[in-house]
Amino acid sequence: MAEVKLYGSWSSPFSHRIEVALKLKGVEYEFISEDVHNKSPLLLKYNPVHKKIPVLVHNGKPICESLVILEYIDETWEEGPSLLPKDPYERAMVRFWAKLLDEKGLPAMLKACLRIGEEQEKAKEESTELLKFLEGTLSGNKFFGGDTIGMVDIVANFMSYWFIIWQELAGLQVLTKEKFPKLGEWMDEYLNSDIIKENLPPKDKLTEYFQARFEATAAANAAAAGGGGLPK
Amino acid sequence: MAEVKLYGSWSSPFSHRIEVALKLKGVEYEFISEDVHNKSPLLLKYNPVHKKIPVLVHNGKPICESLVILEYIDETWEEGPSLLPKDPYERAMVRFWAKLLDEKGLPAMLKACLRIGEEQEKAKEESTELLKFLEGTLSGNKFFGGDTIGMVDIVANFMSYWFIIWQELAGLQVLTKEKFPKLGEWMDEYLNSDIIKENLPPKDKLTEYFQARFEATAAANAAAAGGGGLPK
Repeated sequence: MAEVKLYGSWSSPFSHRIEVALKLKGVEYEFISEDVHNKSPLLLKYNPVHKKIPVLVHNGKPICESLVILEYIDETWEEGPSLLPKDPYERAMVRFWAKLLDEKGLPAMLKACLRIGEEQEKAKEESTELLKFLEGTLSGNKFFGGDTIGMVDIVANFMSYWFIIWQELAGLQVLTKEKFPKLGEWMDEYLNSDIIKENLPPKDKLTEYFQARFEATAAANAAAAGGGGLPK
Repeated sequence: MAEVKLYGSWSSPFSHRIEVALKLKGVEYEFISEDVHNKSPLLLKYNPVHKKIPVLVHNGKPICESLVILEYIDETWEEGPSLLPKDPYERAMVRFWAKLLDEKGLPAMLKACLRIGEEQEKAKEESTELLKFLEGTLSGNKFFGGDTIGMVDIVANFMSYWFIIWQELAGLQVLTKEKFPKLGEWMDEYLNSDIIKENLPPKDKLTEYFQARFEATAAANAAAAGGGGLPK
């Protein structure tokens, strides 16, 4: 039997992408919890370039970068539900949106919640613009993947769950059901799907975790604004 | 017959990736030259999210983002030489390195040549570290793709040609044959391959183009350092 290990962290949307894909495919795996502030020698050996979770280790061979891992899972366990469609043009569209969400979407939405002033306003605008594009792609479909959960839905997990917590903590209303009704319906469908619902980290625990992180960032911002923490 | 159009620019390594892939596959296409400072309405219609070249339009349907386009070309014109291997693990490795070169490599190497002071030193270090990893992956192979040119070689085109021009203009010696002998051999093999050699933009024209761009950046840096261009 193949040996599948996932080096990840319970609070990470990147790590969660891989868990969801493996569960959807019905692949048994061992989850190895990494402390992101004190990384294990094995993680550093498996991912010497980025030194980051998630890393999937399949029969001793490591694969890094969540988007790369998702495509590997889809190509390796073909018998399960497909994460990407078969048609080359549809596959290109999936890769385009997954890349955009990963490279622009997540950083912009996190910045919108963590930064202040002009930087925050810019990140809010960028997030809103991106959300408008995403709202437009959901015409009549339950999921970004059509009738079933696909790679874009999985990559967008941060939007449906993590960002909702982040914007609550930051007191923002960037992504709401009123502003983006189709994305609102998509979030409900996604979060209420069996495999997703059963595997999301508990909301209160995640809120607590990010509250501490957000407070630390706010303190660092204040210290920087006050000239390295010295009273003015 | 299928209609293939490429919206690109002669001086862009991103655009050049697509030209090389189409030529390797033997796909006939029409090249539509875009002025990157005055983009055409069609380009903005085809790529409303990023508003950037290259865009491949195949039978009226646009595909954006060079890495996404390369995979589309490989999956659509299967009869030509493969840009990605067949094995899922090897495919994952190709995607990993292509992504790294695209997202970290090119920006770091460009910054190393365009920025000054501490920012430049940091970008030089980042570039050197990345080059060491790349040197390590070339063990005994002519190309990153093995015996033939593959997706990683194509994505790395900026390194073998553009960066050599950039570092000459900036007076740097980050990537040299002495420091990176395997990358040096790879560059020779790549640049002397028939299809590559015949399609590269002329070195003197490219040097002239980037010299003007580098001088404009230097002037902007000097103006910023001098408080918006006012004499101190």
